[in-house]
Amino acid sequence: MIEESLVFWSGALIFIASFLIFIILENRNNSRKEMFSSHIFVSFITVISYLVMALALSTVNAENGQPIYWTRWLFYVGSCSILTLDIATISKKSNSKKAEVALLTALTMFCGFLASVIITSDRWWFFGLSTMAYILMLFTLFKSSRNNATNISTIMWFVMITWSLFPVVWVLAPTGFGILEADIVAISYLVLDLITKIGFGIYITMKH
Amino acid sequence: MIEESLVFWSGALIFIASFLIFIILENRNNSRKEMFSSHIFVSFITVISYLVMALALSTVNAENGQPIYWTRWLFYVGSCSILTLDIATISKKSNSKKAEVALLTALTMFCGFLASVIITSDRWWFFGLSTMAYILMLFTLFKSSRNNATNISTIMWFVMITWSLFPVVWVLAPTGFGILEADIVAISYLVLDLITKIGFGIYITMKH
Amino acid sequence: MIEESLVFWSGALIFIASFLIFIILENRNNSRKEMFSSHIFVSFITVISYLVMALALSTVNAENGQPIYWTRWLFYVGSCSILTLDIATISKKSNSKKAEVALLTALTMFCGFLASVIITSDRWWFFGLSTMAYILMLFTLFKSSRNNATNISTIMWFVMITWSLFPVVWVLAPTGFGILEADIVAISYLVLDLITKIGFGIYITMKH
Repeated sequence: MIEESLVFWSGALIFIASFLIFIILENRNNSRKEMFSSHIFVSFITVISYLVMALALSTVNAENGQPIYWTRWLFYVGSCSILTLDIATISKKSNSKKAEVALLTALTMFCGFLASVIITSDRWWFFGLSTMAYILMLFTLFKSSRNNATNISTIMWFVMITWSLFPVVWVLAPTGFGILEADIVAISYLVLDLITKIGFGIYITMKH
Repeated sequence: MIEESLVFWSGALIFIASFLIFIILENRNNSRKEMFSSHIFVSFITVISYLVMALALSTVNAENGQPIYWTRWLFYVGSCSILTLDIATISKKSNSKKAEVALLTALTMFCGFLASVIITSDRWWFFGLSTMAYILMLFTLFKSSRNNATNISTIMWFVMITWSLFPVVWVLAPTGFGILEADIVAISYLVLDLITKIGFGIYITMKH
Repeated sequence: MIEESLVFWSGALIFIASFLIFIILENRNNSRKEMFSSHIFVSFITVISYLVMALALSTVNAENGQPIYWTRWLFYVGSCSILTLDIATISKKSNSKKAEVALLTALTMFCGFLASVIITSDRWWFFGLSTMAYILMLFTLFKSSRNNATNISTIMWFVMITWSLFPVVWVLAPTGFGILEADIVAISYLVLDLITKIGFGIYITMKH
């Protein structure tokens, strides 16, 4: 338990820092000044999420006794929907398609929450639904994208590869087959969060 | 219990099928291609809802001992708001009125959730509030509708009659006076879901 | 307990009345007819909130034994976000900034909910995050406001002063240092709700 909580406290600290950095970056960048400051919100929601996990406020135990921090997935409903909305906006999607992408992301994470909070084998039904929503989201994002710049398809590939590692960790973690221990899982998710939320955010804020 | 779970599994199966059918229909229909694919989302959310009920993940018992599947109403917050938003869009409502109609639907279903999860007579307060929100929603939808085609008022009447049967079932079910058994209730809601979510969806997708 | 429940029943009654009054006011006022009827929704959500507290449906006890009605903060997520969205609209903010103001309000209230439902000293972390989101919200609202009329800055000052009294009550209440008793707290929040939700609503509906 001590080791995970260290990871979660580190996460909370890093995302508080990135929250402050994005406030500065977004206000410096004139072309983004009137846009929705997605990355400020993504960092802030992630701080709440890591703090809830650091304090171990609500967890369940997998059948092998390992703790499952299921609250993570409820906060992803908010933070990841804002992220894909930003990606859809950069890809110049229509408003309807933007809403679809964000809602499909929310449903992916909500089914992921159900799959994590349920410890019986029933959870795999929701893992299946989550995967369906995720694939449909990627399909909606890629399809008929009016990508007039090469870096848009780069973003797409980056998203598809890094985001798809989350369900891989989920399957190996106590939530899935329980091959990885809870502390290794906490570190893996933190690394993925750093790449997809801070790394991606800095890249987008600098480029656009 | 066995009988209800059969109804719920059937519901999950039917709505998975309608989810796939709407994906095909919406992509075939050029005029709807750039619109928000409401019916795909309504079907998908309904699948999650039926699966949660089929697995009896969270229920309470009415004072007569019959089970109440209150989670249904939380999922209606999402699915029914998307449906009325679609109806308001077809009726060419302004953006403000569209938001009002969707939010009133969400509040109707949220009060319905409170009325279902509370088993003491306190629940009738929330049934009352739910009814108020529902009437205001119908009023907002009907009022000053720039209906330039006869089939719009047909849709309005269809919605008003079929949707109003949900609270009738609620009152007769274990949630209300407990006249109907839980399995009959499950079948009644399934039939109403098929009419208002799949039947309506196919009609709209074909016509518009 | 009896005294608080009297306060909560009074609140429910007053907000049902204001709900009906705003329906009349908004329909009389031609210039607001096509706008989103914020104040109708704010009153309605507040009725649900007061009813839930009047029936003491879900409370926790502070370490000094006093009851904490934490549900209040979840309903503020909805009602206060609608209010600040209305204020941002009146201040002629861009759509992105309107969304930011509403989302920051939602996060303020959500962290306030976590700070209220947690009774250990961990709650102060979330009080801190709530305060950060609140300050950022005020900053976004005040910054580069294209205020072309003096009454807009009046509104801003009114909001800043009256809204900032909520965390003051929170700190003195059983949720914070437990200096005030639960019944005094209930009356204080009711007075603040009357000023910020009904008083403010009537002023805005009359003026704009």
